[in-house]
Parts: sequence; C-alpha cells; structure tokens
Amino acid sequence: MQFARIGEPGKEVPALLHQNKYYSLEPVAKDIDTDFWESDGPGRAAAALAAGELDELSVDGARIGAPIARPSSVICVGMNYAAHAAESGSAPPTVPIIFHKAPNTVAGPYDAVAIPRGSTKTDWEVELGVVIGRRASYLESPRQARDHVAGYVTVNDLSERTFQLEVSGGQWSKGKSCAGFCPTGPVLVTPDEVDPSDLTLRSWVNGEIRQDSSTRDLIFGVEQIIYDLSQFLVLEPGDLICTGTPEGVALSGRFPYLKPGDVVEIEVAGLGRQRQEFFQG
Amino acid sequence: MQFARIGEPGKEVPALLHQNKYYSLEPVAKDIDTDFWESDGPGRAAAALAAGELDELSVDGARIGAPIARPSSVICVGMNYAAHAAESGSAPPTVPIIFHKAPNTVAGPYDAVAIPRGSTKTDWEVELGVVIGRRASYLESPRQARDHVAGYVTVNDLSERTFQLEVSGGQWSKGKSCAGFCPTGPVLVTPDEVDPSDLTLRSWVNGEIRQDSSTRDLIFGVEQIIYDLSQFLVLEPGDLICTGTPEGVALSGRFPYLKPGDVVEIEVAGLGRQRQEFFQG
Repeated sequence: MQFARIGEPGKEVPALLHQNKYYSLEPVAKDIDTDFWESDGPGRAAAALAAGELDELSVDGARIGAPIARPSSVICVGMNYAAHAAESGSAPPTVPIIFHKAPNTVAGPYDAVAIPRGSTKTDWEVELGVVIGRRASYLESPRQARDHVAGYVTVNDLSERTFQLEVSGGQWSKGKSCAGFCPTGPVLVTPDEVDPSDLTLRSWVNGEIRQDSSTRDLIFGVEQIIYDLSQFLVLEPGDLICTGTPEGVALSGRFPYLKPGDVVEIEVAGLGRQRQEFFQG
Repeated sequence: MQFARIGEPGKEVPALLHQNKYYSLEPVAKDIDTDFWESDGPGRAAAALAAGELDELSVDGARIGAPIARPSSVICVGMNYAAHAAESGSAPPTVPIIFHKAPNTVAGPYDAVAIPRGSTKTDWEVELGVVIGRRASYLESPRQARDHVAGYVTVNDLSERTFQLEVSGGQWSKGKSCAGFCPTGPVLVTPDEVDPSDLTLRSWVNGEIRQDSSTRDLIFGVEQIIYDLSQFLVLEPGDLICTGTPEGVALSGRFPYLKPGDVVEIEVAGLGRQRQEFFQG
C-alpha cells in the first residue's frame, strides 16, 4: 500500500494511493501519525477501500505534503556507505553513528527550500527513510526489527556543511536542522512492497546526475539499524530514520554546493522522486 | 507564575501553582504545550485564577510530571561551562555546541530512572532548562531572545558516557536519549520571576554534593543561545533547551558512575529540586 498527505502545510489530508488514484482517508484517520500506526491504520484503510467507503481525492494543483505527520524524532545514521565516508574524509564506521534532525524540518517532497542565511555549503543527500510502525525498545535481534517497520520513504537529508562541520564543535546536528531541510516522500510504501536491501538511490542537480548507488552498499542495513537504535533509545510509531547517503555529494569536492535557482531531484527506486527548487533564505 | 503537570504518565493534568496550592488548568488548557504558549496560556490562566474559575487540585500521593508536554525538540548546549569542558578533556568552545535528546526522554522530576542495559557509565548533569514560548527564527539580536522565553525549568541531562563517547563515532546523542534520561521540573517558572544569569545549580548523589556552581559561569548565556540557535533552526513554542552542565560529574573521574539504588538530587535555585532513584533497566 502507498500513503500520502495532500494539502497545504499543517492542513494535509491523509490519503491512500491506489492504482494511480488518491482516496481520502478522512473516514479512517485524522492523520498518518503515531495513532495511525498504533491503531492498524493500514488494515483499516484497506478495509475501508474494499468496502467502497473512501472518496477519491482530487489532487489537481494540490500540494503533496510529506507522507507522514511530524515525527517525535528524526534520527539519522551517518557515514553508512563506505564510499561516502571516504569522500567525507572518514573511515567506515564500526558502529552506527547517529544524530538528530529537528523534527520540524520534515517538509513536502516538492516544497521549495531556502538556502539558509549565511550558508555557502548547502548540500543534498538522497537517503532511504524508514518509518517506525511499532514501539521498539531493546529488540532481541535484528530480525525482530521487521515487525517494527511501517514503511519506506524517499528522504533528502539536506545539510549545511559549514554549520555541520566548521562551527559545530564536531556535533553535526547544527547543519542538519535548518527550516525545510528534510523533504520526505512523496509516498510511504508499506514493507510488503519493498525490499530495502536492494534499492537504487539517485540524485541530480539541474538534471546532472550526482549520486547513483544502491542500498546494497549500506554498511548497516535497515534491520541492524533499528535493532541497534533500540538498545540506546525508544523508537516510537511514526519516527523517521534516515539510513545514510551514498557518495556523490558536494562535500566530496567534485561538485559545487547549491545556489539559488538550483533544482535538486532525488529518487529511491519504487518510493518516488522528489524535486526541490532552492532560493535564498 | 509557576506551572506544573500532575498525574500518571500521558495523563497529566495541567496546573497552576499559586501560594503553595495547585489549581487545575483544565478550564483553560488541555495541556502545557505548543497551543498553550501560542494562545497566551499564562495570561488566560491568571485571568481564570483571579476570576475564581480554577478548582484546587489535590496532589496528595499524586505523581508530579514534567511541567511541559513532550516538546517538538530537546536541544542541548554542550561544554557550556569552562570548568566542565576542562573536566571532560575539552577546550572551552568558541561557538555553542548543540546536540539533541530524543523528545520522548522527558520525564517527571521524581520518576525512577533505569540504568540502561549494558551501561557502566550513567552520569548526572544538573542544568538550567529554557522553554520556548514564541517561534524563533533568525532573531536579530540576543536581546530579542527575551521575548521568546516561556519559562525556566530544572533539567537533569542524564548521559551514558560509553554510549556518548566510545561507541558513538563522536556524535553525543547516542548516550543522551535513553528512556527517562531527561527528568524535567517539578515546575516551570515564568521569566518575570527568574534572573537566568545568576542561579545556583547543585547536584547530590546519595546526599553527597557533586555539582555546586552558578549560571554566572555559563560561557553562552540564555539570550545568546536562543539567538544563536535561531540562526540554524526554527525554535517552536514548547521546545526545551538544556543550557549545559557545570563541573562535578562522574566523567571527571572524581566520582563513581551511578549504580542501582543510587539517589540523585538536583536543584536550580528557585526552580525546584528533583530526586531520582536509579534501578537496573
């Protein structure tokens, strides 16, 4: 199943995307949020669709929001592809490295993004995003993690490298939490339709390819990440985990950083393509 | 004014503490959260109290929760006292160093705290907490920050040092986000009753003093922190900022880390004293 949220920021209507048509989930759910996952939202949505209880939603000209409501936490795994660690000047990690993005950075996949004031190093990062469906604390094995996934999303883990690395004292979050820095979606795809271990990730700037890799190259895979995180914190339904970006970002020195007017597109195969135009904030 | 939240976790009733009596704010507010600050909760609470519209709340035997609902973000400033930076083996920072705690770590001031599984280095950190009352983005001066403070709270920024420093790749959040690791309260005190630039902070373990300093020694004061953060992210009403801890934690090597049965007390003068008993998680 695929879920989406349609409408202006803060007023998105939860929707089910089925055979290229959007159906309003308003009879079933207020939002695609913690309550939705805790109350078997997908099961109730499927039943309502089968019973003909869902009205088709017109999306002509409407904004596509992030497919999830603001999470309790947005947790990122850093340096999770060996080639990206190398282009960032780091050795591949032996344990998952985690940091947070402020949850209010979650934005729609096509929303324009402000280059932050004072920024000279705004950078893209295509990532596989995992949305938690069931509370996870002290899982006993990576295999158990499967039961805690609500679905998968495309995420752009936008980063300001001066803020992240040069004026941060080494703590990355300062360059990860600017307004609009977590475009998410366009859809959430449930786990039955996704093999997270073999998904192509690509990004483009002004139509030129930048990143082109696969989640096959993840150092820590989805199940390992969830298992590991659950040893250190409590994952809640609706939380978003960004699993890391492959090589091909501006930080490598191979490409210029973003400037006003640039257009970034990113795609995780099967999860949809995003497009953001950048402007001076 | 002083605000509190009384009741079991997730079922706390918002309350006004006035002349040693608790009054239920249920006629005025659902919770002490973003909506409360955005809708002049304090003004409406004061008016309702003056009009005799608030019933006294019996707190005999009741749990005192954190005085704020779960924030959108919990942002911490690291190494913000020179002597604590020194005991941690770091030079004093020249810019505020920030990291996040998962917002679901916020707990009541007297809740028992689990020593995380696998932990050998659970540590205390008394801190002045600042709660944001008004959205802050790109403030023009530190002075402007005054208008964005909802109030002040006592916070224990509990930390697991192995998780934070040894298995983290250098990103501190992994040791800051364990369940229950952000005891907050018992009260939120509004800015008209607090001078945040001169507050004594103290902590004790099993009755022995550990930390005894003053916010006079903050490297970056409250207004500077809010101003600075607002250049890098958007602060929202209800967000919690932990301003850093002074010297006297176990990380210094001068004291043992916490073990099951230990009792930690922390106090920020005028904001109330916390007490947590630790157990094996």
